[in-house]
Amino acid sequence: MTSLDDLPIRDELRGRRPYGAPQLEVPVRLNTNENSYPVPDAVVEAIGKAVAVELRDLNRYPDRDAVALRTDLADYLGHGLTTANLWAANGSNEIQQQLLQAFGGPGRSMLGFTPAYSMHPLLALGTGTRWLDGRRGADFGLTPADAVAQVRQHQPDVVFLCSPNNPTGTALDPEVVTAVLAAAPGMVVVDEAYAEFARPGTPSALSLLPGHPRLVVTRTMSKAFGFAGGRLGYLAADPAVVDAIQLVRLPYHLSALTQAAARAALAHRDALLATVEVIKEQRDRIVAELRRNGITVADSDANFVLFEVGGDQATVWQALLDRGVLVRDVGLAGWLRVTAGTPQETDAFLAAMAPSER
Amino acid sequence: MTSLDDLPIRDELRGRRPYGAPQLEVPVRLNTNENSYPVPDAVVEAIGKAVAVELRDLNRYPDRDAVALRTDLADYLGHGLTTANLWAANGSNEIQQQLLQAFGGPGRSMLGFTPAYSMHPLLALGTGTRWLDGRRGADFGLTPADAVAQVRQHQPDVVFLCSPNNPTGTALDPEVVTAVLAAAPGMVVVDEAYAEFARPGTPSALSLLPGHPRLVVTRTMSKAFGFAGGRLGYLAADPAVVDAIQLVRLPYHLSALTQAAARAALAHRDALLATVEVIKEQRDRIVAELRRNGITVADSDANFVLFEVGGDQATVWQALLDRGVLVRDVGLAGWLRVTAGTPQETDAFLAAMAPSER
Repeated sequence: MTSLDDLPIRDELRGRRPYGAPQLEVPVRLNTNENSYPVPDAVVEAIGKAVAVELRDLNRYPDRDAVALRTDLADYLGHGLTTANLWAANGSNEIQQQLLQAFGGPGRSMLGFTPAYSMHPLLALGTGTRWLDGRRGADFGLTPADAVAQVRQHQPDVVFLCSPNNPTGTALDPEVVTAVLAAAPGMVVVDEAYAEFARPGTPSALSLLPGHPRLVVTRTMSKAFGFAGGRLGYLAADPAVVDAIQLVRLPYHLSALTQAAARAALAHRDALLATVEVIKEQRDRIVAELRRNGITVADSDANFVLFEVGGDQATVWQALLDRGVLVRDVGLAGWLRVTAGTPQETDAFLAAMAPSER
Repeated sequence: MTSLDDLPIRDELRGRRPYGAPQLEVPVRLNTNENSYPVPDAVVEAIGKAVAVELRDLNRYPDRDAVALRTDLADYLGHGLTTANLWAANGSNEIQQQLLQAFGGPGRSMLGFTPAYSMHPLLALGTGTRWLDGRRGADFGLTPADAVAQVRQHQPDVVFLCSPNNPTGTALDPEVVTAVLAAAPGMVVVDEAYAEFARPGTPSALSLLPGHPRLVVTRTMSKAFGFAGGRLGYLAADPAVVDAIQLVRLPYHLSALTQAAARAALAHRDALLATVEVIKEQRDRIVAELRRNGITVADSDANFVLFEVGGDQATVWQALLDRGVLVRDVGLAGWLRVTAGTPQETDAFLAAMAPSER
């Protein structure tokens, strides 16, 4: 039998394993930062109707430029953005891959500050972009001075920031974005996948777009919108950035069904985003309860919490799984990440974490 | 205002324009090799139901490995293929991009024989793979000896063959695939987007898969299945190739809606593929009628016909458009490509082409 090693794959892929959290059948799944709330009936009906309209004409290619969807996304974001500022793809992974195809790639470099979203270095690998592993402080913090020093040292073609940061959960000080924009020789991408969950007073980098054509803000409908299965990521940037992406995007990358379903979800955003406040309450409850038990927890502006386990995280991960609660081992020694979902899921997680049980 | 030129895009992208045929509102659109037949009512209903089942749980990520869909695709292809031989993505463009990310990329090369599918060199560009422009004979033919000589000369990491070839329409002599497989040092990809339209007796490269782990056959549901708007491309190959793709694929690249819709379409393949024979009749009619009028036409195994216009193809393209018929100028001096669709569309095209009108 032929094995992967017998094939002429790229050298840097040898010995690697596919990215992805274990997809296990467990009562309480708090490992991939999904929104725990199913789509409400009224929205199910609306998406179903919107999709049904497209079915007869599936023999035709979809709108290659997804103009109507981009218009709706601009309307959602506000900040004076219009269709020309928006671009959409099958998840923000594809958005970020397209950005690297246009602005990174062979002979170019990309700087990220780890720990951050673990796909960022993999996107560098997949696009032939040299990955520069930037560092955060001991508390996972990143100061403007630290960030700028690393940008000046590496002179990367692309800088990736992540705010709120995954897996730590904490939003960046907006001064970091401003300072990096001033220092960076190339593009600056701010991954705001979890922006809707930020604590009050946390500004989005969207407000920095005017006058900063090298700034790109990426977003997703997977989290706050509870639309992970629909796969819709997007970016907001200067229209010239959208022009650049169109040179590398695959034609007709976004299906007619995806475009219709996402538009229907955006039209019902009040119903979908109603879960955000509920989830933030659970997030804050997890933070407070863990801290009450003396556990170190990173400040969270997201729908998840990073907490210190006081030992080997793989052992604790397994112990929680044995109690029916699946959390995420993000490969950070001594830490685990748990998604904030329903009150019942929080109950189950906190019970599994209770000192008496450990 | 910022322009594309002001941004630090990759040098090889400068001055380029986005790929894609003009999307014009014209009575008779025969420019993108779509299937002219809308999805039948019964299949619309079935896809609608299948999609509806997924909507409530769109808050969850889709099956990352699309196991059920790949099983259905294997069943459709036959040839003893199983789930492990199949991989699916958002169109065969994404399939081929993934193949180049795993087996091509920076420092590697890819050989194609032009004119062929015009995305192939663009996929090389987008993945940093060096494109080697192989040549066909004067009649667009490719003999085993010609192909092998070019493979030996260039020693490409990946060879792309296209059968039936787009834009010429003619299927490859199977001896070409066999000979290239024997001579090529790396992977051999056969793009069979139009396989279902081949003339009787035309073998698929699927029959060569046993014993050839470096062979990959790519297919699409855009053409014969009339599912262009649903975006579903796939490949069949040794399971090790599928393992390789999983190292570069974006996690959750294929939405729950896409997986459900494609599965419903596959379950109703008899109804959908019923259009193939009708379209082949129109294809053969176009070939026969044009030849009767003394026009040189390439043999076609696809749902389109490449014909010589006896002059500047851009002028003839515009003249046909002025008569309400949109065909494709593929950038081949003196030639145009027309999609075979309904009898009425053939009537309109042939009327627009009639000598008395020119």
